[in-house]
Amino acid sequence: MTYDVNDISYVEMLFQQFYHTGSTVNGGVTRLGYSAEEDEMHEIFRRLNEQEGNFCTADEAGNSFAALQKDDKPYVLIGSHLDSVIDGGRYDGVSGILAGMMVLHWARRDGLQLPLRVGAFRCEESSNFGRSTIGSSLITGRAPDDTAELAGVDGRTIREVFKAKGYSLHPAPIDGISRYLELHIEQGKVLQNEGFRVGIVQTIAGPRRFNLHLIGLAEHSGATPMNLRTDALCAAAELILAVEKIGNRGAADKSVATVGVIHNQPNALNVIPGRVRLGVDLRGIRPESLDRMEKEMIQSAEEICARRGVTFFRERLGGKAPTDMDSQMQEDLLRAARRLKISAMPIVSGAGHDAMNFAGICPTGMVFIPCDRGISHNKQEFTPVESICDGAAVLYEYLKGAAK
Amino acid sequence: MTYDVNDISYVEMLFQQFYHTGSTVNGGVTRLGYSAEEDEMHEIFRRLNEQEGNFCTADEAGNSFAALQKDDKPYVLIGSHLDSVIDGGRYDGVSGILAGMMVLHWARRDGLQLPLRVGAFRCEESSNFGRSTIGSSLITGRAPDDTAELAGVDGRTIREVFKAKGYSLHPAPIDGISRYLELHIEQGKVLQNEGFRVGIVQTIAGPRRFNLHLIGLAEHSGATPMNLRTDALCAAAELILAVEKIGNRGAADKSVATVGVIHNQPNALNVIPGRVRLGVDLRGIRPESLDRMEKEMIQSAEEICARRGVTFFRERLGGKAPTDMDSQMQEDLLRAARRLKISAMPIVSGAGHDAMNFAGICPTGMVFIPCDRGISHNKQEFTPVESICDGAAVLYEYLKGAAK
Repeated sequence: MTYDVNDISYVEMLFQQFYHTGSTVNGGVTRLGYSAEEDEMHEIFRRLNEQEGNFCTADEAGNSFAALQKDDKPYVLIGSHLDSVIDGGRYDGVSGILAGMMVLHWARRDGLQLPLRVGAFRCEESSNFGRSTIGSSLITGRAPDDTAELAGVDGRTIREVFKAKGYSLHPAPIDGISRYLELHIEQGKVLQNEGFRVGIVQTIAGPRRFNLHLIGLAEHSGATPMNLRTDALCAAAELILAVEKIGNRGAADKSVATVGVIHNQPNALNVIPGRVRLGVDLRGIRPESLDRMEKEMIQSAEEICARRGVTFFRERLGGKAPTDMDSQMQEDLLRAARRLKISAMPIVSGAGHDAMNFAGICPTGMVFIPCDRGISHNKQEFTPVESICDGAAVLYEYLKGAAK
Repeated sequence: MTYDVNDISYVEMLFQQFYHTGSTVNGGVTRLGYSAEEDEMHEIFRRLNEQEGNFCTADEAGNSFAALQKDDKPYVLIGSHLDSVIDGGRYDGVSGILAGMMVLHWARRDGLQLPLRVGAFRCEESSNFGRSTIGSSLITGRAPDDTAELAGVDGRTIREVFKAKGYSLHPAPIDGISRYLELHIEQGKVLQNEGFRVGIVQTIAGPRRFNLHLIGLAEHSGATPMNLRTDALCAAAELILAVEKIGNRGAADKSVATVGVIHNQPNALNVIPGRVRLGVDLRGIRPESLDRMEKEMIQSAEEICARRGVTFFRERLGGKAPTDMDSQMQEDLLRAARRLKISAMPIVSGAGHDAMNFAGICPTGMVFIPCDRGISHNKQEFTPVESICDGAAVLYEYLKGAAK
């Protein structure tokens, strides 16, 4: 038997404990990385694990851990995150934490002979500081040098936030991990469309991120004839459509291109827009596809802005190369699912995950579970608790094999 | 003689008194309608007029007035406004107030036999509440019924602001005005390009304003393939360019079309935009041109959104029909300029002004002065004090003729 109704109730109970934190009037949740709401999520994580009798710690970057016993190195780490995007859903990240806690629960019950920890990483989403997986990158030595200077949505930098919270910008590297595992909702529609209960991740697409700045001339919207304008927003509109076309061309390589952020100044009805900043996210599993998309984007921006007399410059934000999961672990995870008769398929991750950082320091594997209609980063995000149990069962079956 | 170096110094001194209020770090000013900064501007206006010995009052909508004597009905009213856009310039509105005060100064010196007041109206710009000329519309009976419910940039409605300040949403109508005059910077490039010192306004273009709402689906930017997206920002980008094209076609009728405002949700790097609101401003002097532009805009929005699976709806914000200035006053103002050897040309106003409201209740005329390169609603806005004196001299010469 993989899991029973008591296991489903247990995960449901855990889910409810996290439910209310950061709830918004729109029905979603806002639990930004390193915010008070994320603090509260970690506090709930600690409390629930202490109730289970697990050994709880936090590291110098604010990440939280729960272990079956105190001195357990080398251990397998099952990780994910507890933060969310603005007005996001309740399953992104949290599902992986719940699965990890379910596995700890089974391991304790069965006396599994394999040291095991669950890790909850800080600030996986880029919604606060424009860069993702900050907590896990700091402890794996993968955080870019400028991390401290990133400014959050409230204007405070990571340096300021860390100082206030007593965290370190150069925390001790995590050590003693033998393997890293992560369960996550797919955030896409492939598993649901194809009818599989879990996906075993082959590669995580690499995101490249940019701020594109367009500077025109803010003038009176009523008194400036059309032919005498330098409208930054019209140039930005052309660029948004160019980025969409670049993404469409990249789709053959499973790449995507998104303008998710726009800031317009002065953003008033009676003023022609003078300055626009666009935030762009390019993703793909092939570096050559990412290179091509980046080049095409810059060329488009330069052509559009030159034609319109708009000044253009770009900032490159954090980027990551595509990351392959450990091939032996992929095989073993597929085999574990087969043993449990849980249908599984190999899959590519379009979204980034904390697993990217761990792949650099130890063998790393990821399990995806479906989410309804592929909707994520949205209050409509939904996955049944049974799916979380499916994924947890595959992780546990894999670990039992590894423990032999 | 029209004016001398003392007059220039006087206007310069007045200008400096208003200079610092609402100054921003970018070098412009932010003096939003019904804000503390606008309050301060009115307080300075009152103080300066009391120093001159003028009789100062305020009405129930917060508009300020200065008169040569107390019981002076019927009187000629010279008006303009003291608020600004966000990060705007220091001449828009203020120039007209300075010209009015210069005229009061001359009239007092010369003992002009014509009752005269200067009026400073509240919230002429739409930057705070999305609607313009609120102060003057309330006292001329031209404020739309929904005025009280308009929400400002800080989320408070006019009803709330008025309650806090002790103003009335139904103030006593202004009475006893024989004529209305207003001086304003052109906010365009026509006078400078054509080499005229003043313009006599024939017609004020009518603005029509809309909020266009586009609703797509917010999904994970990495995990959602390009062909499965419903990106509200891409639809908005098409619509921004469609509005620009509509404006270009309307240019033959001296019409313009501008998307000045964009709000994107959730506006995060890793989320496909789910909702966008665009604020559109259409302006023209021909109602049939405005009708055509409005129709084309709605058709474009419906076509774009239907094709992309995006939901579209619109809100119509305040609109105003084009407003003709009094033809006899136009003639008399041109004649006054000719007598002073100040070069003058008839001109169309693309921008809206408080004069639109007064044209409904009394003969109304407007004088434009050039502003450098036509730049307005921007910290680079500039007009020399001599230009303000040019316009004031034309107003005063006209009034001397009317007093005979």
